[in-house]
Amino acid sequence: MKPTIEIEYCPKCGWLLRATYMAQELLTTFQEEVYGVTLIPSEVAGRFQIRTSDQIIFDRKREDGFKDIKIIKQLVRNQICPDKSLGHSDRKA
Amino acid sequence: MKPTIEIEYCPKCGWLLRATYMAQELLTTFQEEVYGVTLIPSEVAGRFQIRTSDQIIFDRKREDGFKDIKIIKQLVRNQICPDKSLGHSDRKA
Repeated sequence: MKPTIEIEYCPKCGWLLRATYMAQELLTTFQEEVYGVTLIPSEVAGRFQIRTSDQIIFDRKREDGFKDIKIIKQLVRNQICPDKSLGHSDRKA
Repeated sequence: MKPTIEIEYCPKCGWLLRATYMAQELLTTFQEEVYGVTLIPSEVAGRFQIRTSDQIIFDRKREDGFKDIKIIKQLVRNQICPDKSLGHSDRKA
Protein backbone atom coordinates (compact mmCIF):
# COMPACT_ATOMS: atom_id res chain seq x y z
CA MET A 1 0.00 0.00 0.00
CA LYS A 2 1.39 3.38 -1.02
CA PRO A 3 1.54 6.09 1.64
CA THR A 4 -0.92 8.97 1.88
CA ILE A 5 0.57 12.40 2.56
CA GLU A 6 -1.47 14.63 4.85
CA ILE A 7 -1.32 18.43 4.76
CA GLU A 8 -3.04 19.97 7.77
CA TYR A 9 -3.40 23.73 7.45
CA CYS A 10 -4.96 26.54 9.48
CA PRO A 11 -7.83 27.95 7.41
CA LYS A 12 -8.06 31.06 9.61
CA CYS A 13 -4.47 31.89 8.62
CA GLY A 14 -5.55 31.72 4.98
CA TRP A 15 -3.34 28.73 4.16
CA LEU A 16 -5.77 26.76 1.99
CA LEU A 17 -4.21 28.06 -1.23
CA ARG A 18 -0.70 27.37 0.03
CA ALA A 19 -1.73 23.86 1.06
CA THR A 20 -3.35 23.05 -2.28
CA TYR A 21 -0.36 24.47 -4.15
CA MET A 22 1.89 22.11 -2.20
CA ALA A 23 -0.51 19.23 -2.83
CA GLN A 24 -0.21 19.88 -6.58
CA GLU A 25 3.58 19.92 -6.36
CA LEU A 26 3.69 16.67 -4.37
CA LEU A 27 1.14 14.94 -6.61
CA THR A 28 3.14 15.94 -9.68
CA THR A 29 6.52 14.85 -8.33
CA PHE A 30 5.37 11.76 -6.40
CA GLN A 31 2.49 10.65 -8.62
CA GLU A 32 3.79 7.08 -8.73
CA GLU A 33 4.91 6.89 -5.11
CA VAL A 34 1.86 8.09 -3.15
CA TYR A 35 -1.68 6.85 -2.86
CA GLY A 36 -2.86 10.42 -2.50
CA VAL A 37 -2.59 13.73 -0.64
CA THR A 38 -5.19 14.66 1.99
CA LEU A 39 -5.91 18.32 2.71
CA ILE A 40 -7.14 18.80 6.28
CA PRO A 41 -8.48 22.10 7.67
CA SER A 42 -6.92 22.34 11.13
CA GLU A 43 -8.77 23.18 14.30
CA VAL A 44 -5.45 24.28 15.80
CA ALA A 45 -4.68 27.95 15.09
CA GLY A 46 -1.44 28.49 13.19
CA ARG A 47 -0.83 24.83 12.38
CA PHE A 48 0.76 23.80 9.12
CA GLN A 49 1.96 20.21 9.11
CA ILE A 50 2.92 17.79 6.37
CA ARG A 51 2.99 14.16 7.47
CA THR A 52 2.49 10.52 6.67
CA SER A 53 0.25 8.38 8.87
CA ASP A 54 3.09 7.80 11.32
CA GLN A 55 5.63 10.62 10.84
CA ILE A 56 5.60 14.41 10.86
CA ILE A 57 7.60 15.46 7.81
CA PHE A 58 7.29 19.21 8.25
CA ASP A 59 5.87 21.37 11.03
CA ARG A 60 5.75 25.14 10.66
CA LYS A 61 5.99 25.77 14.39
CA ARG A 62 8.93 23.40 14.82
CA GLU A 63 10.72 25.04 11.87
CA ASP A 64 9.64 28.54 12.92
CA GLY A 65 8.34 29.32 9.42
CA PHE A 66 7.71 27.86 6.00
CA LYS A 67 10.26 26.24 3.72
CA ASP A 68 10.59 26.38 -0.04
CA ILE A 69 8.84 23.58 -1.91
CA LYS A 70 12.23 22.20 -3.00
CA ILE A 71 13.08 21.52 0.65
CA ILE A 72 9.61 20.09 1.32
CA LYS A 73 10.03 17.66 -1.58
CA GLN A 74 13.40 16.53 -0.28
CA LEU A 75 11.91 15.87 3.16
CA VAL A 76 9.01 13.92 1.63
CA ARG A 77 11.36 11.98 -0.63
CA ASN A 78 13.65 11.09 2.27
CA GLN A 79 10.65 9.68 4.09
CA ILE A 80 8.74 7.75 1.41
CA CYS A 81 11.20 6.95 -1.42
CA PRO A 82 14.79 7.76 -0.36
CA ASP A 83 16.30 6.43 -3.60
CA LYS A 84 14.32 8.77 -5.87
CA SER A 85 16.22 11.60 -7.57
CA LEU A 86 14.49 14.96 -7.70
CA GLY A 87 16.53 16.13 -10.66
CA HIS A 88 18.83 19.07 -11.15
CA SER A 89 17.74 21.02 -8.08
CA ASP A 90 18.41 18.08 -5.82
CA ARG A 91 20.79 17.48 -3.04
CA LYS A 92 20.12 15.46 0.09
CA ALA A 93 18.27 17.61 2.61
CA MET B 1 -15.72 11.34 13.02
CA LYS B 2 -16.23 13.71 10.11
CA PRO B 3 -16.21 12.21 6.61
CA THR B 4 -13.27 12.47 4.24
CA ILE B 5 -14.11 13.31 0.63
CA GLU B 6 -11.99 11.53 -1.99
CA ILE B 7 -11.36 12.95 -5.45
CA GLU B 8 -9.79 10.35 -7.74
CA TYR B 9 -8.63 11.86 -11.04
CA CYS B 10 -6.84 10.62 -14.14
CA PRO B 11 -3.47 12.41 -14.27
CA LYS B 12 -2.94 11.40 -17.90
CA CYS B 13 -6.10 13.32 -18.80
CA GLY B 14 -4.57 16.40 -17.13
CA TRP B 15 -7.21 16.58 -14.41
CA LEU B 16 -4.96 17.41 -11.46
CA LEU B 17 -5.77 21.13 -11.67
CA ARG B 18 -9.48 20.45 -12.00
CA ALA B 19 -9.33 18.10 -9.01
CA THR B 20 -7.46 20.58 -6.81
CA TYR B 21 -9.81 23.37 -7.84
CA MET B 22 -12.75 21.24 -6.71
CA ALA B 23 -10.91 20.36 -3.49
CA GLN B 24 -10.55 24.09 -2.75
CA GLU B 25 -14.24 24.67 -3.40
CA LEU B 26 -15.30 21.77 -1.16
CA LEU B 27 -12.86 22.72 1.61
CA THR B 28 -14.16 26.28 1.55
CA THR B 29 -17.85 25.36 1.59
CA PHE B 30 -17.65 22.31 3.87
CA GLN B 31 -14.76 23.38 6.11
CA GLU B 32 -16.73 22.54 9.25
CA GLU B 33 -18.36 19.37 7.93
CA VAL B 34 -15.44 17.35 6.51
CA TYR B 35 -12.30 15.95 8.05
CA GLY B 36 -10.47 16.58 4.79
CA VAL B 37 -10.32 16.06 1.04
CA THR B 38 -7.99 13.43 -0.44
CA LEU B 39 -6.65 13.86 -3.97
CA ILE B 40 -5.85 10.49 -5.55
CA PRO B 41 -4.08 10.06 -8.90
CA SER B 42 -6.03 7.27 -10.62
CA GLU B 43 -4.51 4.26 -12.32
CA VAL B 44 -7.72 3.94 -14.33
CA ALA B 45 -7.61 6.00 -17.55
CA GLY B 46 -10.38 8.59 -17.79
CA ARG B 47 -11.60 8.22 -14.24
CA PHE B 48 -12.90 11.20 -12.30
CA GLN B 49 -14.78 10.23 -9.16
CA ILE B 50 -15.82 12.11 -6.04
CA ARG B 51 -16.80 9.90 -3.14
CA THR B 52 -16.93 9.30 0.56
CA SER B 53 -15.50 6.10 2.03
CA ASP B 54 -18.70 4.22 1.25
CA GLN B 55 -20.53 6.12 -1.50
CA ILE B 56 -19.74 7.39 -4.99
CA ILE B 57 -21.04 10.97 -5.09
CA PHE B 58 -20.03 11.77 -8.67
CA ASP B 59 -18.60 9.66 -11.48
CA ARG B 60 -17.66 11.25 -14.79
CA LYS B 61 -18.31 8.09 -16.79
CA ARG B 62 -21.69 7.51 -15.18
CA GLU B 63 -22.68 11.14 -15.84
CA ASP B 64 -21.06 11.16 -19.28
CA GLY B 65 -19.13 14.34 -18.52
CA PHE B 66 -18.36 16.87 -15.82
CA LYS B 67 -20.85 18.93 -13.85
CA ASP B 68 -20.60 22.49 -12.64
CA ILE B 69 -19.22 22.89 -9.13
CA LYS B 70 -22.63 24.13 -7.94
CA ILE B 71 -24.10 20.73 -8.77
CA ILE B 72 -21.13 18.91 -7.23
CA LYS B 73 -21.62 20.83 -3.98
CA GLN B 74 -25.30 19.95 -3.89
CA LEU B 75 -24.47 16.27 -4.36
CA VAL B 76 -21.85 16.40 -1.59
CA ARG B 77 -24.21 18.31 0.70
CA ASN B 78 -27.02 15.82 0.13
CA GLN B 79 -24.65 13.05 1.16
CA ILE B 80 -22.83 14.47 4.19
CA CYS B 81 -24.98 17.29 5.63
CA PRO B 82 -28.44 17.34 3.99
CA ASP B 83 -29.73 20.17 6.20
CA LYS B 84 -27.02 22.65 5.16
CA SER B 85 -28.03 25.54 2.94
CA LEU B 86 -25.64 26.44 0.14
CA GLY B 87 -26.94 29.98 -0.11
CA HIS B 88 -28.52 31.90 -2.94
CA SER B 89 -27.51 29.53 -5.74
CA ASP B 90 -29.04 26.59 -3.96
CA ARG B 91 -31.88 24.35 -4.78
CA LYS B 92 -32.09 20.64 -3.99
CA ALA B 93 -30.20 18.68 -6.64
